[in-house]
Amino acid sequence: MDNTDVRSWDNTHFVHPWEGMSALGQNERTFVETARGIHIFNGNGDRLIDGPGGMWCTQIGYGREEMAEAMAEQARQLAYFSPFSNTNSIAARFARELARRSPGDLNHVFFTTGGSTAVDSALRFVQFRNNLLGRPEKKIVITRQKAYHGSTYLAAGVSGKERDRLWLDKADQFAHFLPDVNPLYRGEGQSIEEFLEEKIVDLENAILTLGADRVAAFIAEPILASGGVIVPPKGYHRRCLEVCRRHDVLYISDEVVTAFGRLGHWFASEDVFGIRPDIITCAKGLTSGYAPMGATLISDRLIADVAGRDATFSNGYTYSGHPVCAAAGLTSMEIIEREGILEHVRTVAPVFQERLHDLSRIGIVTDTRGMGLMGCVQCSLDGDKHSALKADYDIGARIDAECQKRGLLVRPIVNMCVMSPPLIITEDQVHQMFDILEEGIRAAEQCDGE
Amino acid sequence: MDNTDVRSWDNTHFVHPWEGMSALGQNERTFVETARGIHIFNGNGDRLIDGPGGMWCTQIGYGREEMAEAMAEQARQLAYFSPFSNTNSIAARFARELARRSPGDLNHVFFTTGGSTAVDSALRFVQFRNNLLGRPEKKIVITRQKAYHGSTYLAAGVSGKERDRLWLDKADQFAHFLPDVNPLYRGEGQSIEEFLEEKIVDLENAILTLGADRVAAFIAEPILASGGVIVPPKGYHRRCLEVCRRHDVLYISDEVVTAFGRLGHWFASEDVFGIRPDIITCAKGLTSGYAPMGATLISDRLIADVAGRDATFSNGYTYSGHPVCAAAGLTSMEIIEREGILEHVRTVAPVFQERLHDLSRIGIVTDTRGMGLMGCVQCSLDGDKHSALKADYDIGARIDAECQKRGLLVRPIVNMCVMSPPLIITEDQVHQMFDILEEGIRAAEQCDGE
Repeated sequence: MDNTDVRSWDNTHFVHPWEGMSALGQNERTFVETARGIHIFNGNGDRLIDGPGGMWCTQIGYGREEMAEAMAEQARQLAYFSPFSNTNSIAARFARELARRSPGDLNHVFFTTGGSTAVDSALRFVQFRNNLLGRPEKKIVITRQKAYHGSTYLAAGVSGKERDRLWLDKADQFAHFLPDVNPLYRGEGQSIEEFLEEKIVDLENAILTLGADRVAAFIAEPILASGGVIVPPKGYHRRCLEVCRRHDVLYISDEVVTAFGRLGHWFASEDVFGIRPDIITCAKGLTSGYAPMGATLISDRLIADVAGRDATFSNGYTYSGHPVCAAAGLTSMEIIEREGILEHVRTVAPVFQERLHDLSRIGIVTDTRGMGLMGCVQCSLDGDKHSALKADYDIGARIDAECQKRGLLVRPIVNMCVMSPPLIITEDQVHQMFDILEEGIRAAEQCDGE
Repeated sequence: MDNTDVRSWDNTHFVHPWEGMSALGQNERTFVETARGIHIFNGNGDRLIDGPGGMWCTQIGYGREEMAEAMAEQARQLAYFSPFSNTNSIAARFARELARRSPGDLNHVFFTTGGSTAVDSALRFVQFRNNLLGRPEKKIVITRQKAYHGSTYLAAGVSGKERDRLWLDKADQFAHFLPDVNPLYRGEGQSIEEFLEEKIVDLENAILTLGADRVAAFIAEPILASGGVIVPPKGYHRRCLEVCRRHDVLYISDEVVTAFGRLGHWFASEDVFGIRPDIITCAKGLTSGYAPMGATLISDRLIADVAGRDATFSNGYTYSGHPVCAAAGLTSMEIIEREGILEHVRTVAPVFQERLHDLSRIGIVTDTRGMGLMGCVQCSLDGDKHSALKADYDIGARIDAECQKRGLLVRPIVNMCVMSPPLIITEDQVHQMFDILEEGIRAAEQCDGE
């Protein structure tokens, strides 16, 4: 196959997510063709460390024979069943294994095809329950600036990234956005504790102003991921949950990025942040990216409110609980357990975070932040954390280009690079990764004047 | 593994699509555990013909070693790449192969994770384009009663099945519903031709009343599938397209069910119904159900309207263009081509339709309708096509139960059974299937008084 052909097919026929219209048909995207462990190989056969871990998802790493075999064996035995009329033991077993590992009484699993549909389904369940409870006006969802919850119309409606709101309509008539929770942007002279108080007051005031009888839920990523790895102040989640409980507002923890080991635990809500939410949404690491799957985990208490009623939850997909995806999920879970990957993350994360924060020595680096195996480096050419120079919009892409030359794939987001490598990354490889990232940032800094 | 355990896990942990709340936790769903060709095997090891073909999706049949191998090989080589930043030759090649087979200039493929997200993305693209063209008020989507376009909030908004609208909110503030297009329910004494005229006038009047400057698109399944296999009168689609063209309204053909051979062609829009729509949505047969995938096919003309603009189509999924799913899709396409499955469908469909229509001899059968390898048998205990007796709500389920005893899985929808077997079904097997269906209906008719 001629490389030129594939490049032209990509540009002519494959419309990518978040496709930029200005460069439509003229992209020079990196071809990722094969991968092993934490490394991907591009179209030229160059080996690169996969900095973003696919897209926060390749927990167990690439090229696992056991995964290929499990998926193939399931495809041979039963590639599909209709979850509408029938059921299947792999999907039932995976639901049970998820329930066993989820916090509190989150025992009911609604399978979807990814994160967006998990959030869409969670929000539709919240609406369904309030309709059944005879309070159809209780529908507002409180969310946050820079939050990302997916791109179906409903999930996009509660996503707060401003850039994504420019040209597309959203179901945001019942979304209410709270201000940025990034401590980096707290008021001058404001302590972290004062900033935390302010954020909690923001939430409670919103509920009181909108009216608790109109607010259905609060949705929050434990760490705002593609918004730029924003870690709220310590105690934030627990305090938010208390506020929600006081006003009969549901807490939806969107763990699409943080679940399945990214922070060293199956789910981060309880084990890292000490909360038992009403609903958890997850995807990505659920199958380590080997197959499309998402899930909405719902508490016993919420289900009890609707069980026995003469009503149907008219929501779901042809591919809910797909057996090949469930087989991928179960096998990934077994590998994480057998190889002690959660423990490994807890061991290697401090090294990762230390190397990450070391980058703040570089002039253009204005912030480094993260937790577990999530990290973000924020840059500005004038070294000012508040500045958004026109030239800053390219820094991420320039760092990515410099790093790719040196053997590291980076995920640039405007003036940030987010890092979330496969969870199996060793301590040595963490050092390699940050060595290259540092060189890449310094090289991007050099071509300042271009 | 103990069967009782699996049953209890299914009931306790696996919340199914369209889960009925009244029987929540007490279902006796049939376990589908293995399958070969057109047959599935239930938890007891009984072999049944798969009447619904999974869920309108298992085109090439079950247990294909070639599919298992292709998916496993892709999982070994590259189980995931991020379609946001990067690309991959399997996904680019699959996009090109789809574009080659699609009608007219539908050359741009936006991959999704299933039918709901394909429709969600199509509608969001329509909104995006009209926002860019400076006419943000042109957003209404005309759709039809009994239409089914998916269950994300937006896709559900344009779905017209009344039952699904009872307890769930929808994004239907910009949906306008046209009346039923089923000729069965035309006025007394009205000819098919008169009925067709009425339906075309319905569409044009809706556009004129709402205002062409406010109507963005018309969305239609060529045959309304889960609404009960409703085949509009001959010429309907071509006439609707003409109306749309006259008023600058886009035509979205929702081929989630009809594409990939169900009616004997890759796509039905042009080859069966003589139209070249602006957008086609597809899923299901795209991978023969072996992996979750959907696609939105967009015309060159629509893309030309947005290309070069300083805007981003902020829509897409982690799993858009997933390489394992693309490998499944390409392999299924190769199998359909190599084995002449499209031609086979065109050969066997007349036998299928003849046997289907023969069922109208049975007293409780009030209508039989279909096309290609899609069929529906509608029943009422009093033999009146207009009646909706309370007891009629169970007929489908009773026929399914009777047929399952005799070796056929049926998909019951209230008082209807819809049939869409794997496309590889032989003429002999078509006869077996309808022999059992006939026995099943007669047996269900007998237990009338229960």
